[in-house]
Amino acid sequence: MKKAIFYHAGCPVCIEAETKILELVDEKKYIVEVVHFGSQGNRIAEAEKNGVKSVPALFIEGAVLHINYGASMEDVKILICV
Amino acid sequence: MKKAIFYHAGCPVCIEAETKILELVDEKKYIVEVVHFGSQGNRIAEAEKNGVKSVPALFIEGAVLHINYGASMEDVKILICV
Repeated sequence: MKKAIFYHAGCPVCIEAETKILELVDEKKYIVEVVHFGSQGNRIAEAEKNGVKSVPALFIEGAVLHINYGASMEDVKILICV
Repeated sequence: MKKAIFYHAGCPVCIEAETKILELVDEKKYIVEVVHFGSQGNRIAEAEKNGVKSVPALFIEGAVLHINYGASMEDVKILICV
């Protein structure tokens, strides 16, 4: 089973992207872990290390797919106050 | 079977996104039609009508997911000379 991580911050753009990605995914091949920075601010450093510049973003097989644009990671850090 | 459309223009960013999306997709639920504007310039108007502003983009269930950023549709139209 492969793993992908969907990083988001709860914004409307994030929720729409999350819905679509989870609908699309082959659950027999991939587990998609959903990380919401609002409750998992401790995952921000990891996300940035993985190359996430904005949310929503899907980290998959070493690549980051930035999906539409909700907020920059800079804004996420300010708004979430970590 | 549901249908999604992946619009792109052959750029490296497009190819990476295409690879990841096709790897992720549940083929029992979704058919993903891949439209390359280089050979299917006649699909540009339809893509714009569907809300595509840049490539690569995935049109799914009435929503557009712009995935990373390869080129704007304006640039696509100039470069593809339709």
